[in-house]
Amino acid sequence: MSPRDLLVWVNGERGAALDPRDRGIAFGDGLFETMRYGSSGISLLDYHLRRLETGATRLRIPYDAELLRNEVTTVMEAARAEIPQGVLKLVLTRGVGQRGYRVTPGMLPTRVVTASALPSNPPTWASAGVAVRFCDLRMGANPLLGGLKHLNRLEQVMARLEWDDPSIAEGLLADSRGRIVEGVSTNLFIVNGGRLLTPVIDTCGVAGVMRQYLIDRAPEILGMAVDVTGCERGMLTGARELFLCNAVIGVWPVSRLGDRALQVGTLTRKVRDHVEQFFGA
Amino acid sequence: MSPRDLLVWVNGERGAALDPRDRGIAFGDGLFETMRYGSSGISLLDYHLRRLETGATRLRIPYDAELLRNEVTTVMEAARAEIPQGVLKLVLTRGVGQRGYRVTPGMLPTRVVTASALPSNPPTWASAGVAVRFCDLRMGANPLLGGLKHLNRLEQVMARLEWDDPSIAEGLLADSRGRIVEGVSTNLFIVNGGRLLTPVIDTCGVAGVMRQYLIDRAPEILGMAVDVTGCERGMLTGARELFLCNAVIGVWPVSRLGDRALQVGTLTRKVRDHVEQFFGA
Repeated sequence: MSPRDLLVWVNGERGAALDPRDRGIAFGDGLFETMRYGSSGISLLDYHLRRLETGATRLRIPYDAELLRNEVTTVMEAARAEIPQGVLKLVLTRGVGQRGYRVTPGMLPTRVVTASALPSNPPTWASAGVAVRFCDLRMGANPLLGGLKHLNRLEQVMARLEWDDPSIAEGLLADSRGRIVEGVSTNLFIVNGGRLLTPVIDTCGVAGVMRQYLIDRAPEILGMAVDVTGCERGMLTGARELFLCNAVIGVWPVSRLGDRALQVGTLTRKVRDHVEQFFGA
Repeated sequence: MSPRDLLVWVNGERGAALDPRDRGIAFGDGLFETMRYGSSGISLLDYHLRRLETGATRLRIPYDAELLRNEVTTVMEAARAEIPQGVLKLVLTRGVGQRGYRVTPGMLPTRVVTASALPSNPPTWASAGVAVRFCDLRMGANPLLGGLKHLNRLEQVMARLEWDDPSIAEGLLADSRGRIVEGVSTNLFIVNGGRLLTPVIDTCGVAGVMRQYLIDRAPEILGMAVDVTGCERGMLTGARELFLCNAVIGVWPVSRLGDRALQVGTLTRKVRDHVEQFFGA
């Protein structure tokens, strides 16, 4: 995909440019959502908008729920005429500001919505699984920002720079104490000792909407609840099944973690098949 | 100052807009420098460019030293015709990207340079000192990013949102262990027990250019070296003198820290007078 395959709307206007004084570029002062859309609309839209509103509240960015819901829906419909199914990314910043960190009254949030084709990952990644590595980078802790999909993502950029081997689909990130939190752009689930676990997201990492959907629906899909817990690295190396998820890719089984091969297990299959059925992932 | 008082150059072009696909807004994937300029040019230019280059190397953003030096100099000269002395801010991002964290070959860094008038702080802040508070926010630790003036500045934005009282000039930020690291947009120096100290900047915070200048020149200005060390909060509450600095404001003595009044001491005066003489701050 070249950057030219992205369709762009700024504050609802197709092809508009961005004010260079925007606090999004100055400080990463904003949030984003990366959504999958297709013939049935935007998958998990309510989850995305709820997380965005939670983030805006936490960052004290004014949030106009109706405007944003209308805008992503309208843009998605316009984009669908050119890209029938794809990824809709919404960036919400605090808006154009003066120099300096201080937030002054009357700032108007900026909305940037882009639409692009689905990523061209090998289809075997969803069927046979992916190879995953451990990243060296440790994420810093900040309870105020932890869980939010904010625009301060240099840690993810630097972690993704750690490898260039296209056969490795994802890298796992740990917090400063070495506990595994997530993938660079996915969340992680672990089947270990008959339990289904996912790392707690509190002081760092992104609380993904697909992760939240699976936490909410696991009792129905699998007949078991998800245990949200701190995950030492040993819980992964001793795991029976591992899978990754996000709102765009759906579910990827992990077939290799570092040097260790894993099977695509029963619970992973069930979750993946459910997600593929409901979201076309 | 209204945003209209900012002059803007994007990639050397006056008044140009920014591509909304820039990784600066997507991820805060870049760096910035905030410089003071006047009739004698850009103060501490070599310090600024050296820090920028260090940051670009660490973030693996291609760095064209000659281009950047020429650009800030040329823009400063153009800006000076409209704003005789002021602040020049240079933002350097990794450039326009595809969706996703991965850095692909051939990305061209984006340069945004803005010029604005000097901040209109009360002149007494430099002469009689400023009131300072402790921020509640604790900065996360990341040795890879610590010290850099990168664009992931949500912690500073959120810390600056903690107070609205215009009589408080600055807030002090601690790391996750509670050690005082810096001000929201300044660095801190402490006179305690006959020593001149400044907090070590390694896992978080910005290693300011004025701080570095003072570390380099203190033996000459004061006849003593700066002790760069971890600073427990108790070292501040027991301090004889405190001062703040950055490349724009120069030096501000601290006349009140929380509830405690402080005198503008001998070392602080000497440093402030030196900076005012050499940089017109």
